[in-house]
Formats: sequence, C-alpha cells, structure tokens
Amino acid sequence: MKHFTSIHDVQDPFELVKKALAFKEKPWQPSLHEGKTVGLLFMNPSLRTRLSSIKAVQNLGAHAIVLDVTKDGWALAFEDGVVMNGKEAEHIKEAAAVMGQYFDVLAIRTFPELKDREHDYSETVLKAFLAYAGVPVVSLESATLHPLQGLADLITIHEHWHEKRVPKVVMTWAPHVKALPQAVPNTFAEWMNAAPFDFVITHPEGYELDPRFAGTAPVVNDQKEALAEADFVYVKNWSSYDRYGEVLTNDESWRFSQAHLALTNNAKVMHCLPVRRGVVMDDDVLDSEQAIHLDQAANRVFAAQAVFNELLSWKS
Amino acid sequence: MKHFTSIHDVQDPFELVKKALAFKEKPWQPSLHEGKTVGLLFMNPSLRTRLSSIKAVQNLGAHAIVLDVTKDGWALAFEDGVVMNGKEAEHIKEAAAVMGQYFDVLAIRTFPELKDREHDYSETVLKAFLAYAGVPVVSLESATLHPLQGLADLITIHEHWHEKRVPKVVMTWAPHVKALPQAVPNTFAEWMNAAPFDFVITHPEGYELDPRFAGTAPVVNDQKEALAEADFVYVKNWSSYDRYGEVLTNDESWRFSQAHLALTNNAKVMHCLPVRRGVVMDDDVLDSEQAIHLDQAANRVFAAQAVFNELLSWKS
Amino acid sequence: MKHFTSIHDVQDPFELVKKALAFKEKPWQPSLHEGKTVGLLFMNPSLRTRLSSIKAVQNLGAHAIVLDVTKDGWALAFEDGVVMNGKEAEHIKEAAAVMGQYFDVLAIRTFPELKDREHDYSETVLKAFLAYAGVPVVSLESATLHPLQGLADLITIHEHWHEKRVPKVVMTWAPHVKALPQAVPNTFAEWMNAAPFDFVITHPEGYELDPRFAGTAPVVNDQKEALAEADFVYVKNWSSYDRYGEVLTNDESWRFSQAHLALTNNAKVMHCLPVRRGVVMDDDVLDSEQAIHLDQAANRVFAAQAVFNELLSWKS
Repeated sequence: MKHFTSIHDVQDPFELVKKALAFKEKPWQPSLHEGKTVGLLFMNPSLRTRLSSIKAVQNLGAHAIVLDVTKDGWALAFEDGVVMNGKEAEHIKEAAAVMGQYFDVLAIRTFPELKDREHDYSETVLKAFLAYAGVPVVSLESATLHPLQGLADLITIHEHWHEKRVPKVVMTWAPHVKALPQAVPNTFAEWMNAAPFDFVITHPEGYELDPRFAGTAPVVNDQKEALAEADFVYVKNWSSYDRYGEVLTNDESWRFSQAHLALTNNAKVMHCLPVRRGVVMDDDVLDSEQAIHLDQAANRVFAAQAVFNELLSWKS
Repeated sequence: MKHFTSIHDVQDPFELVKKALAFKEKPWQPSLHEGKTVGLLFMNPSLRTRLSSIKAVQNLGAHAIVLDVTKDGWALAFEDGVVMNGKEAEHIKEAAAVMGQYFDVLAIRTFPELKDREHDYSETVLKAFLAYAGVPVVSLESATLHPLQGLADLITIHEHWHEKRVPKVVMTWAPHVKALPQAVPNTFAEWMNAAPFDFVITHPEGYELDPRFAGTAPVVNDQKEALAEADFVYVKNWSSYDRYGEVLTNDESWRFSQAHLALTNNAKVMHCLPVRRGVVMDDDVLDSEQAIHLDQAANRVFAAQAVFNELLSWKS
Repeated sequence: MKHFTSIHDVQDPFELVKKALAFKEKPWQPSLHEGKTVGLLFMNPSLRTRLSSIKAVQNLGAHAIVLDVTKDGWALAFEDGVVMNGKEAEHIKEAAAVMGQYFDVLAIRTFPELKDREHDYSETVLKAFLAYAGVPVVSLESATLHPLQGLADLITIHEHWHEKRVPKVVMTWAPHVKALPQAVPNTFAEWMNAAPFDFVITHPEGYELDPRFAGTAPVVNDQKEALAEADFVYVKNWSSYDRYGEVLTNDESWRFSQAHLALTNNAKVMHCLPVRRGVVMDDDVLDSEQAIHLDQAANRVFAAQAVFNELLSWKS
C-alpha cells in the first residue's frame, strides 16, 4: 500500500482490520518508526480525525507535525500554466513538493463546497498532492470519501459480530438541519460492499448516492422494510447527490428512535460523529447499550495506526 | 488524587509542593509516563498555562496534544434532552467521552463571560467534562478557579520564606482597565486559607469575593492598614462579585507603588501575570528585587508537572 | 554562537555549512539535545520556516513548542515606562522573561509593516526579545533579515558548485503583484558578500537595498549585462527601500524566463519560495532541471538543525 485515499488502495481490508486490532492490543510501539515524521494538513476543522491521527503517529514513535491552513491564509493555485497574479501566493507544485521533502507521509483533510458537484467529485486538492508530494498520501477525509472512518467502522463491526452467519448491515439516511457531504455514506458503502455482509441502503427518494460508491447494494426507500432483521444500523445524514448539495426533506419519521430499533434484530447502532441528538437520533438510543458510536470513535486511533504503519514502511 | 479542579482535590497541599520542588531539581524524567497522552483543550487564549502545561507533560515523557476550540468553531450542547437543531453540532456527552478515550488525562481551560454569575459559578463546562470524560480532569483555569496558579503561588512562597515564624500574606486589589474574572483571587484565597499563614485580603468596598472561596480570611478595606508588616503582597485586580462583572472604581491610589511597599516588612511582591505596568503596579516595583512574579511563572511548570504526574499515575 | 539573528552572529559561515551538511547525511540524532525545549513564536503565518524548524528541533531529540500569536490576540507593550491602559495586556519584559524560563532557545518570526522604514529597520520586537529573554534567540525571519534562508541558500550553492573557479552569483529583482519585504534580498546579499563569490545585484532603478546589507556588491541596472556568465541566479521581488514599501514598476521584461536563462552560463536558478508562477518566473524555468528552489527548501531543515544544535549547546 503506497497511498490511502480509498478502499481501492487496500489489498485486503480484513488483513488491515487484523493489523489495527493488534495495535489495539498493544498501542505503544515507539521503536517501529522512530525518527519518522508525518505531516497532518487540515484545510478544515477536525476533532476526532485530528486527535486520533496525532495519537496514532505518536504511538508508532514518529512525530506528528500539524499544519492548519484555511483558504484565506494560504491560497494555493492548482491549474497548470496559470499566471498567479491573484490571491494565490503558492502553486501546489511547490507546496506539495516542499512538504514531501519534510515529511515521510503526508496526510490531508479537505472538504467539499457542495456547490459544484463536478468540482467536488474531481478531488482537485487530493489529486494534486498525490501528483506532486512524492511521498505516501493519506486522506483524512476528502470531498467524496473518508476512508479512515470506513476502516474504523469495519473494525467496529468485526469486534461486535460473533455469529457464524453473515450479518445484515443497514445504512439509513436521517434528518439534519444542514447540508452535509456524502463522504461518509460513500465510504461506508464502499467498505460494506467489499465485505461479505448483507448490506442494504435506505433513504427517501432523491438521496441516491453516486453509483461509483454505492455499487450494487440494494436501495430500499421503505425504511421499515429495510430495517427488518438488521444486525447493524448505520445512521447518517447526507445531502442530495442528484440535486447536488440540497436538503430535500427533513421528514422526522426518519429520525432514528427506539421504535426503529424495535424493527431490527436487536441491532447495534452506529454513527460516525458528531451526532445531533434529537435531530438525527434520539437520546434514548444513543444512551442505550445498543449504541456503539464511541467504539467507532475509539477505533479511529487503531485504524490510523495500522494505515500509518503501512505507509511509513513504504520504500520508494 | 483523581482530578485537579480545586484545592479540595488535594489531600495535602504541602506534600504536593514538595513533589513539585523535587521536579524542579530534576525536571526531565521521561521514563515516568512514556507512551501516555495528555489532552490540553483551550476554549480561550493562554500563554503561561499553555506553555508550562505542555512542557510539564513532555518532561514526564508523555505526549501533549493541544486542541484550540472557540465557541464559534466547535459549539457544544450541554443540556440533557436538548433537541440539537441550532448551532451546536456535538453534545458534551459524545465530545467528552471521545476525548476520554484518546487521552489518559484531559485538561481544560474555560473562562467566565462575566455576565451571568449563576451561570459562570455553576461551572457547566468543567462539570460536564468531569461527568462524561471517564478520565482524570485538570482545570487549566475555569470560570471561578485557577488551581495550577494557586499551587505555583504556594510553591513560590515556600521557596522565599526562610523564617520560623508564620508569614503575613496580603492579597490586595489593584486597578485595571478591563473587567477581570475572580478566578485568581478566589484561588489564592483558598490556598492561603489552607496554609498556616496570617492571610489578609484588602480591597475597596464592593469587591468582596464569594465567601465560599474567601472563607474566614479577614477583609480590611483600609489598604495601608492591611499592608502593615506584610511579608508577601499579592497584587491583583478583579471585577465585582456582588455587582457581578462590574468595574466599581479605578482609584489610582490602589496602584501598587514603592510607597505601598514601604508600608510592608520589606515584602516580596507577587502577581500571576499578565500585569499591566503603570496601571496595576508601578515599573519600579516590578523591576525591583522584591518582585517575584517571574518565579511564580517559572514554578507553573513544576506545579503542572507534580499534578500531571499524580493524575497519570491514577488507575481506574 | 549565542544568538542567530544575522550572519554577524556566525563566526565562520562555511563551517556552519559543513555542520548542516553533516546533519543532512544523518538527520536523526535524538541523543544530542534530549529533554531540551525550543519555543517557536510566530507573529505571522509561515509554512517552510515553521515546518523545517519543528523538524530540525525534533531531529535533535528536543521538543518544539509552537506558539502562534497575532497582534489582536496578544498585544505586547514594548516601550519603557509606558502606562499600559490601552490594548496591550502584557509588557515584553514579562513576556520574554517568562518564555526564557520555559525554553532553552527562543525562536521568533516577525514581519515588517512596510509603512515606516525607521520603525521596521529598528527591529523593535527582535531586539526586545534579545534584551529580555535571557536565552539564545533565533530569528525565523525578522523585519529586515531571514538568516536561516541565507544559510540554506549558501548550503545549496555549496552543494551545486563543483568547479575550482569562483562562481558568479547574480541576484535579480523580479516583478510581483504585492509589496514584499526586503528581508530575503538583504540576507542573500549579506551571505554572498561574506562568501568568496563574484556577486552582482541587478534591479530597476529605485530598488537599491539598504547599503548596510548590500555592502559593496556591484549593482547593474541592465539585467542582460548582469546575467552574462552567471552560474547561479537568485530571482526575487522586493519593494523599494528608498520610497519605502512602494512598488515602483511591474515591468514584465524582468520576469525570469528561458530567454534570461539563455544569457547565463547554464545557471542554476534559485528562489526562496513561495513563488508566483508566470509573474516572478516562468513555468518552464521552474519546471526545468536548472531550477534548484526545492533543494533550497529541503536545506532549510539542515540549516535550522545546525543553528539549533549550536544554540542548544550554549552554556550561560
């Protein structure tokens, strides 16, 4: 594995899960990558990703150097041949190449603007770093994907599933007050499609995900029907991909409640956080023993640790 | 000691002073807490607390991970059962629990708004972290207290007092151009009340502190009378507790000067910093050998190191 | 060497180049300064200087503690005897002395305002830290100089020059859309004047540098004449020193192009970065094998490592 920007960079996702769980058993292994440096570049605010990535790097004995950049403070030019007489003070060719000289691995957080689908889904920023950094690149969430979350989710399901049969995993849309990216649902779909699970997506009409990520997973618009016999339910809001970035409905009947949980096979309930209580999901679900959102958050450290360990071992 | 949010968390303050002074003798002890991680969460800007806490953690061989949060960037909901359809994107239940999974000790800096006394003095934010973090919590200054400053002050007095008799310690109000919190005077009163010192508070009428912190320390409104025979003078501005957050006077006669110093027993002069020269205290006092404010600042490292060492040793 | 604020702090620049190159051979030497702490204080945004300085400190086994300060967030008073009743909350006497107690070396980034030449060139902030910090001080770029860049540039020329004859080094002004400081050209002139090189400066009339830095280096206003037989060309914009901070011309004929390169002795082309492509220099020069700007950036780490190693070894 040279880069980690989507599940397609991973040879065997379950092998990576195993490695992450080995780090969970023994997180502190400072001799593994002593003297190495990982650059963590945040173009948008981050809590879990920031903290878990720093900790993962430090657990490996390496140094994490964080750089917070905002569009205002550090405007980068991306186009080839552009005359830089505007606000962009540096071209990605130099910025990425310089950071590639300082860091053994470069990790980047970007974010979609949810205005121009083609622009967001072209992943300009991430692709430019891949092109010019010259070192392994990790996505700390991009415009379209959040693969460290996907890996942490797979780890969490793996930890909570002890039966021999294939689990039924349902990803259900939920209401929100803001327009949110599709990165997490795109990612969860990719990772579930790659696993030998019975994976179903349910959402109101108009919330279909990009088929490049949703793949052939069955989509059921009747939430009740979808939830039947579910062993895991992933609750998540996203904005429309079709009418890009729009909030099409706030139908409260989709807010995940004990009544929804009762339809399942005593399912474990997942959320990537942050979660708006009383809007996306009810308090009594989040505070119940069925909720495993804190396990997902905890596993972010070991997911990141497994990934950084692979990439820090990469030789050019 | 599980938490450190006030002197009431400390079994024996002088035992803690001794431990801090042992670290001052030998600060660099990296094998003590190798592989541990302390989260330092700043909801307000900080210079001394930030730098001294980071250094204290690193001296113990642990990693300090700093997170700067502002109300705008990371709005948290605190109420139970709230429907989060406003600007708050995450509930303290999740935020604190997640950070408790990433950190061995969680240290937090909050600040009063000086508008609603009941709200400030209820310490909502600090108490929520205590309730939900699941790991030891350190106050890096809260709405009402600044216990790391109190410990550093006690260390400093201990270092500068070599006589057998009980020293007279006077805390005197001083003018300022802004309304400041009562956290530092509340704290100094608590720590001095716990020590076998002759402790006196002096301030203009209307500046009485909350009796829960001021305790039974004598309050003298005549500054000259109070300063007589003082061995240590703690100069500090605060806004009114009674007429909450108000500046009642800027009486320049309270600005600490050589004339004030002349009334004392050649007292050592203390201030927690930052200090406004020419407003709170005169230059010629701060630049004199009687001023020990830089010793107080230096001792912040060893105060923090003693506290973090205790809490990192705590086993659940 | 106690401080590093200009080439005048350096006994033998080429000795320092040698030490930097030894670190380039073996960067990771954590036992050299284990347990030491370097404070990095940024009063202005920084990319290369920030990242390379942090990495240099860590390569030496020391801790880097970064403090970002802006004029709004942390206003400092600098004048002696000032009554601090305005927005300045802390005096440099306290601020510098406190940080000097926390750090073994204090490194500071300041910036000129380009409004008042006398004010900028008096280096108030840097001089105050030198006066009050009590520990070695490193300039991470000041109002008038950027000595870590100067050292990195000398290292880079040293690495790329393999002939016995003296190389011809030309520093040429180039257009820009903004008014930029003179710190980098001042510095490059100082370091080239100290080296046994044939050093020439070329710029349009009105762009003469402060003679304290430009020294006796020949200035040629005819760019073509200056570039003839050049072995190294340093391309850089700066604003006028004479009509202080003004942009006098944007003459595009000064934008460095293949046509300019053709006038030289197959010169290596240098730039300190960030560089505005198509404004300061053409893409096809920056993307050619003659461009060594990325080597300059890479050498920033080893320049800083050599400097921090010297200053961390300084005994008071």
